[in-house]
Amino acid sequence: MEEECKPIINTGLRGVTIASTKISDVNGQLGKLVYRGYLVKDLAENTTFEEAAHLLLKEKLPNASQLAGFKEKLVAERDIPASLVAALKTRPNESLPMDILQAGTAMLANHDPEINVQTREATENMALRLISKTPAILAAWERIRNGKDPVPPNKELSHAANFLYMMTGEIPNDEIIRFFDACLILHAEHSFNASTFAAREVASTRAHIYAAVAAAVGSLSGELHGGANTRVMNMLLEIGSPDRVEQYLNDELEAGRKIMGLGHAVYKVDDPRALILAPMSKRMGEMAGQPQWYEMSRELELKAKEAFKTRKNMDIFVNVDFYSASLYYSMGIPVDLFTPVFAISRVAGWTAHVLEEQFAEAAPKPMLYRPESDYIGDYCGPEECVLEPIYERKP
Amino acid sequence: MEEECKPIINTGLRGVTIASTKISDVNGQLGKLVYRGYLVKDLAENTTFEEAAHLLLKEKLPNASQLAGFKEKLVAERDIPASLVAALKTRPNESLPMDILQAGTAMLANHDPEINVQTREATENMALRLISKTPAILAAWERIRNGKDPVPPNKELSHAANFLYMMTGEIPNDEIIRFFDACLILHAEHSFNASTFAAREVASTRAHIYAAVAAAVGSLSGELHGGANTRVMNMLLEIGSPDRVEQYLNDELEAGRKIMGLGHAVYKVDDPRALILAPMSKRMGEMAGQPQWYEMSRELELKAKEAFKTRKNMDIFVNVDFYSASLYYSMGIPVDLFTPVFAISRVAGWTAHVLEEQFAEAAPKPMLYRPESDYIGDYCGPEECVLEPIYERKP
Repeated sequence: MEEECKPIINTGLRGVTIASTKISDVNGQLGKLVYRGYLVKDLAENTTFEEAAHLLLKEKLPNASQLAGFKEKLVAERDIPASLVAALKTRPNESLPMDILQAGTAMLANHDPEINVQTREATENMALRLISKTPAILAAWERIRNGKDPVPPNKELSHAANFLYMMTGEIPNDEIIRFFDACLILHAEHSFNASTFAAREVASTRAHIYAAVAAAVGSLSGELHGGANTRVMNMLLEIGSPDRVEQYLNDELEAGRKIMGLGHAVYKVDDPRALILAPMSKRMGEMAGQPQWYEMSRELELKAKEAFKTRKNMDIFVNVDFYSASLYYSMGIPVDLFTPVFAISRVAGWTAHVLEEQFAEAAPKPMLYRPESDYIGDYCGPEECVLEPIYERKP
Repeated sequence: MEEECKPIINTGLRGVTIASTKISDVNGQLGKLVYRGYLVKDLAENTTFEEAAHLLLKEKLPNASQLAGFKEKLVAERDIPASLVAALKTRPNESLPMDILQAGTAMLANHDPEINVQTREATENMALRLISKTPAILAAWERIRNGKDPVPPNKELSHAANFLYMMTGEIPNDEIIRFFDACLILHAEHSFNASTFAAREVASTRAHIYAAVAAAVGSLSGELHGGANTRVMNMLLEIGSPDRVEQYLNDELEAGRKIMGLGHAVYKVDDPRALILAPMSKRMGEMAGQPQWYEMSRELELKAKEAFKTRKNMDIFVNVDFYSASLYYSMGIPVDLFTPVFAISRVAGWTAHVLEEQFAEAAPKPMLYRPESDYIGDYCGPEECVLEPIYERKP
């Protein structure tokens, strides 16, 4: 493939192709996202998170018996050790949930019987453990910080349903389960986004998969990445009602501030995931008797598109965080858990990328990520600075 | 600056300049490493870790009163909360120390009063806390896993001496302190190495500094990065005595295996840090009555250089991990703590890079790292794959 020559200093590698992958393809112009060849829309509408995770990790959709085997393995790994729960209980209630999830992911490594085994098989086993146990950590933390005991997993439930059950202690209705399952599929993978890149970068040193996923959790926590869904919801809460949308939008644009949930590094059209999330948000809001969050979102989308066209002569598009916020809120998920919920889905993509980074058979083999930087700092004349004894240094 | 156009797919960004920095400069051709203009050799021989950390974080060497103020702040942050010690006590004794350090770094965020403040000042305060508290976590863990109580910090001691004291409960002699201090300086910073790049990548999402440093710890743990010093020592232990070096070298080269501690992504001459570490390793080995580790290292260096020249007609050079291994071993540091000890030094560089990534005044401002990938996976014909119902899928 021919690479165009672009200036790439201090541009966050934006638009620069740095690696090949077989995991997913994002077509930002057409608004298409595929996981190993399958449109995410088809997957969200017709499969389960378990099938999508199988597709990402094992490179193909499972048939019925493969899926049964895969689910059995996942179900068997749903519990977390009592000593990890004990560690969570030492944490201050006000801890940021993403920090708890990052620490919890790192601590899972302490319990993995294959932690020192550097094979594809062992790493895939660890990937399954991560996919099953990170939701358990999050659910346990939500209970613990509210003074409740963690709920043991329910083996009869799907991955999506079991997480909601472990968090609330109640089995949700089928429509909520189906919506949440679709959300987990939609957020599972998105090529070389910042958190996945962090996971691959760490994995490229031959660090184990827990270290890589913990790094990815850290990256996802940033407000320019996964943290954006929380910020969208805080914006909706600040707006308060659909009739206040226009005023809010005008005020923000006048002040030169960013509107959360709009724009994306890759998509130049509406994010295909947002198009699936929007009707779910509408339906979920109606079911929950809180239609205003979807209504505000929709109003904000339309008015923002209009305003950007008029004021800046540019098109602006909604991204994945825009409608997931109102959807999660109507489902009763606490606002500060939106980003961790993103994480327990994306862990499927992260682990698939770690497997590809460490065990891909393709040539050239991936190499340790070690870029160069351009030093623009001080020298003292043409040579290195002379080190002055401390008492001769100026203030 | 003119960028050469290079193929950068699947090459780990090796040799590709992606950002500007004022923190350090690595001249791989001349074997020079400077921190903000000062040769690392001068710093290691004439300053303390505290002065080097001040240089990295605050962009200049401190004068006497600035250093006093900086040290006072660091000393005040040396303790870790009792509930964090309680969390460490829940961890299995056989946990990998780098995993403990990654989890511990993430948990430190739970206790930081400024965790939600996104200013340079708050982030610099957090950087100081990280520099002071990560050694405390490591020392506490070494005690706990051996069934001992953590040792409270000693305010009278330097940063280097206090770590050794908290780990062993004994104040080491002055020469050991001076050597260890020099090691902390030498390992503190090295531009866009893999772990620093991970820290910057996470920080570029506007995640907080703990999340970024925890990612860096994960990256450093890999055997192709910080994990190499442990592997050098295991190699020396396997060799066992200087007279077995030649046989070992021949066997490894015949088998096509890599010799640990030789070669570097950037240096094309001996690593300037190795040249400082070697005589310290020699002296420390003599003091400890274990001269064989240095002798083996030296013999291996000479014989390997000869063998690479003869067999492959290439020059090979020692890197930073080559002599730090025998040095740390003679100091009595447990082999599996070599990489964590690297981390408690490099945290100064990581935090300086996070500050630069998030608050540099230079234009263009750093952007979220979000590269692109080239999809080489499946499509089913020219279009997306058709999703078959699960019972129609082939095995």
